[in-house]
Amino acid sequence: MAVIRAEIRSGSYFDSAVLMQLQRSLALLDGVDDAGVVMGTEENKEILAHIDLVTPEVMASKSDDLVIVVRAADADTALGAIGQVDELLARKKSNVDQEYRPKTLASAAEMLPDASWVLISVAGRFAANVARQALDLGKHVFLFSDNVSVEDEVSLKAKAAEKGLLVMGPDCGTAMISGNGLGFANKIRKGPIGVVAAAGTGLQQVTTRIHQLGSGITHGIGTGGRDLKDPIGAATFLMAMDVLARDPGTKVITLVSKPPAAKIAEKVIRQARKINKPVVINFIARKPSMRRDGNLWFATGMDDAAALAVELANKMPDLSSAPVLPVEKFAAGQKYFRGLFSGGTLAYEAQFLLEDYVGRVWANAPINKENKLKDSLTSEEHSIVDLGEDEFTVGRLHPMMDNEMRIRRLLEESKDPEVAVIMLDVVIGYGSHPDPASELGPAVAKAKAEAEKAGRYLEVVVVATGTDEDPQNLDNQIEQMRAAGAWVSSSNEEVIRYAGSILRALNEKAEDEYIFTPVDLSTLDKELMAINVGLESFAEDLVKQEVPVVHVEWKPPAGGNEKLASILERMKKFS
Amino acid sequence: MAVIRAEIRSGSYFDSAVLMQLQRSLALLDGVDDAGVVMGTEENKEILAHIDLVTPEVMASKSDDLVIVVRAADADTALGAIGQVDELLARKKSNVDQEYRPKTLASAAEMLPDASWVLISVAGRFAANVARQALDLGKHVFLFSDNVSVEDEVSLKAKAAEKGLLVMGPDCGTAMISGNGLGFANKIRKGPIGVVAAAGTGLQQVTTRIHQLGSGITHGIGTGGRDLKDPIGAATFLMAMDVLARDPGTKVITLVSKPPAAKIAEKVIRQARKINKPVVINFIARKPSMRRDGNLWFATGMDDAAALAVELANKMPDLSSAPVLPVEKFAAGQKYFRGLFSGGTLAYEAQFLLEDYVGRVWANAPINKENKLKDSLTSEEHSIVDLGEDEFTVGRLHPMMDNEMRIRRLLEESKDPEVAVIMLDVVIGYGSHPDPASELGPAVAKAKAEAEKAGRYLEVVVVATGTDEDPQNLDNQIEQMRAAGAWVSSSNEEVIRYAGSILRALNEKAEDEYIFTPVDLSTLDKELMAINVGLESFAEDLVKQEVPVVHVEWKPPAGGNEKLASILERMKKFS
Repeated sequence: MAVIRAEIRSGSYFDSAVLMQLQRSLALLDGVDDAGVVMGTEENKEILAHIDLVTPEVMASKSDDLVIVVRAADADTALGAIGQVDELLARKKSNVDQEYRPKTLASAAEMLPDASWVLISVAGRFAANVARQALDLGKHVFLFSDNVSVEDEVSLKAKAAEKGLLVMGPDCGTAMISGNGLGFANKIRKGPIGVVAAAGTGLQQVTTRIHQLGSGITHGIGTGGRDLKDPIGAATFLMAMDVLARDPGTKVITLVSKPPAAKIAEKVIRQARKINKPVVINFIARKPSMRRDGNLWFATGMDDAAALAVELANKMPDLSSAPVLPVEKFAAGQKYFRGLFSGGTLAYEAQFLLEDYVGRVWANAPINKENKLKDSLTSEEHSIVDLGEDEFTVGRLHPMMDNEMRIRRLLEESKDPEVAVIMLDVVIGYGSHPDPASELGPAVAKAKAEAEKAGRYLEVVVVATGTDEDPQNLDNQIEQMRAAGAWVSSSNEEVIRYAGSILRALNEKAEDEYIFTPVDLSTLDKELMAINVGLESFAEDLVKQEVPVVHVEWKPPAGGNEKLASILERMKKFS
Repeated sequence: MAVIRAEIRSGSYFDSAVLMQLQRSLALLDGVDDAGVVMGTEENKEILAHIDLVTPEVMASKSDDLVIVVRAADADTALGAIGQVDELLARKKSNVDQEYRPKTLASAAEMLPDASWVLISVAGRFAANVARQALDLGKHVFLFSDNVSVEDEVSLKAKAAEKGLLVMGPDCGTAMISGNGLGFANKIRKGPIGVVAAAGTGLQQVTTRIHQLGSGITHGIGTGGRDLKDPIGAATFLMAMDVLARDPGTKVITLVSKPPAAKIAEKVIRQARKINKPVVINFIARKPSMRRDGNLWFATGMDDAAALAVELANKMPDLSSAPVLPVEKFAAGQKYFRGLFSGGTLAYEAQFLLEDYVGRVWANAPINKENKLKDSLTSEEHSIVDLGEDEFTVGRLHPMMDNEMRIRRLLEESKDPEVAVIMLDVVIGYGSHPDPASELGPAVAKAKAEAEKAGRYLEVVVVATGTDEDPQNLDNQIEQMRAAGAWVSSSNEEVIRYAGSILRALNEKAEDEYIFTPVDLSTLDKELMAINVGLESFAEDLVKQEVPVVHVEWKPPAGGNEKLASILERMKKFS
């Protein structure tokens, strides 16, 4: 019958690599079944209970107690194992060849003044303070530690924004700066793609896929998985996007995130739109409603994001071909969209896509019942009316054959001073009106002229569906509609993107601007040097990459005894 | 001051093209402001009221009354215009050069016995009966008419399924069979893409985009926009997919639909998966969660659907490379997935994608709160655990550095007789364990061996994240994991697709099979001949396309007087 014995040490601090090694060493001793060496948090005690490694002392331990517990064949063996703990701890040897080990960040910074980066992987409850010291020293922070509070994250990132420094994390697993990996990082080919990720393994997965596809990256900037949540508000993400936007080596930017807060995702997308580079976006669990919108490409997943980024980098798209929006032509108060369709599917797709730009779109045949127009004959706000719906066609020709109802409605909508954009479809082919543009064109010209007389600008946009072999000839129809002043495309999506962009601009509310000091571009490109506080293995990995690094022989204040530490802290204040 | 005069004619029937011409002719008469000629439905009366064209008689008219209303300078002019109605109606001339005009479908069928298709565009309330007659004559039906009841649609499609006939519609705008357009149809190049569409202008938009991209179609089969709703259940859609699956000319199938009912969409996708051709799917307002799943490609919109179809047709993908699923190896009762991740983003993406295959997935870090595991240490049903979450890492190394917790959990999960698939991530690079596969591999082999001893089969799937330049070397890690019996890919999505497909197969409930007589393939390819009932212009357009057509000089029973018609119908039954 196995017995379990435990020892609780209050106020002891070792990094988790040391604890792991100790646990393994204990478990390998003769007669020992299993061993646990962990901090006494509720979660850890549950895990120990789950694997049958608890005693009453273990259950009574506190989150800053070190718990050492052993299950062995008999009590003597168990106690003997525990008796060897100090000896086992002393065996620990370092792989970092460093003559003098500074005890503080400040002295490390004096040893390596050109170090721009501080890696922090101490236990979460101490991490924010170390990060604060690093920022005060003017260093960028790679904050690997998790279990850091949201409040600390907010205050650290506010300080960093002021100083033009990046705080990657907390809980930032990965960063790759100019080919040097911080934390968990892969060896990725250098190339034209820059990545920002609120997603540790997301950054690894996307960049390794980019590498596997034969391309490479400039920088991969992690932000910590919480960066795109409230109340952090993408603080680091936006600074990272900004620096990659300015980085001449970065041709394509890729954004990855764990499931973001919807509003923060919008904020990031709004900012991404202003970048004059292709931006590929994959926010996990946020399904894309379109493939491309201006300089933005929306990926369905991480594979797709990597593939899109490589494809774009290999064949850079022409972003200058984006249509100019006539936003300044509209009068004050013009802000609404009215779609007058003959084709039901075109109307549905328009509703679906337009919602991304303007929010709620009313319709007589809505995708969601809540958006049903009260009266199909009277538009409200943004509205889409399918005039081919059953309600309009009893004993009446379909609007693809007879333009009369649409023309009446077009002239009516154009009188509404709040209307900015009206959309029509012109669907040709057998069965349809023999020359719809000959009737719709003049109506469009008239509607635009009357709006102009009334001191407004009316944009009429048209999707033209047909081919060059149709009896009416597509090009002929397009020419007639353009001659009447309409903006025309044969892609429904393109028309909605154009109209949606205008409406978004007209309806955009002044957002609180996020003010930050831009990160100095040279930070990313100059030789990387770092200070490491916490897991020694991260320093070892930097050494392997030939990155100059100073490892700090860090101990928590008062050796990890938090009660004592807080007394010391208070004494400092009063002294 | 203008005056309005109206005439109501009960029991009159004219097709809507005639009514439109009459309305236009009246409106063009001297002194006439505006005119309306419509059936007296509630909707039509509202429209007339909206444009100031009502009188008390108009408002009192019934839905099978013909309403003729004129607004003119004075009463004499208005009444004079109405007095010319019969003369104007008599002026109507036909463009269909047809010596003898049959009055019934049956006699038309005798005139053109090889006609396989009947186009029906009579008023909705008469359309179902005409369609029923067409099916009884063994003809495929193109049912343009809208305002047909759901009950009629169900019964027509049941009859059609029995006879191996297609009922396209009701409210089917478009079909293109072997280059011949029915209803609203574009002239599309012949090519390798077959399209099925519960979306009239959807079919037009996608096929015209295909044409514009330089490719073409075999057939475009419309089904009516309600086909993918309850209770129709994709009755025509599934038959159309089946015939295109068998059609040797169709290399790629594209499916388009107006917003479908979720369950019916699933049913269609399930069927599409069984087709040994690439299938591109765009169901409007249903955002894709992945780009590809086996033979299925999911498009974000109609443009994207057309582009994908053309791309696939130009460069046919190798569908035979799909992995074989070891479904038959599992013991009864094995049905669950357990994901044990070290990478949070990989875990999130896995949750998101897996839900498409198995429904609810529990997680310790769920995308949606409702899916949170009650106890992170105990899996339920399908579960994904991120062992890198804060709760597991206080004073403990990250699972990318220390495999111990995952190995314990792997061995625990593998003992659960309901578990079929376990997924691990192996994330390498700087910072990570120097050789994770050396520890995870043996654990996988042990788990599989123990399951086998217990009479079960355990599939362990692994996403391996890294590059050939990482210190651990990706290929080396993959080889070790494969040697241990794991199924490995460097794409997270690919692993989930593979695992998801296994789990879907294990959890699939026996669905009610939809039994139908397959449509004879030769129908699509032989010379198209048609009978037209309703709008004469549809016959004219067939003539323009050199399609042999007989137009039926159709009148509703009892001239459209429904009370009389129903008496006649009852008398027939008793005679």
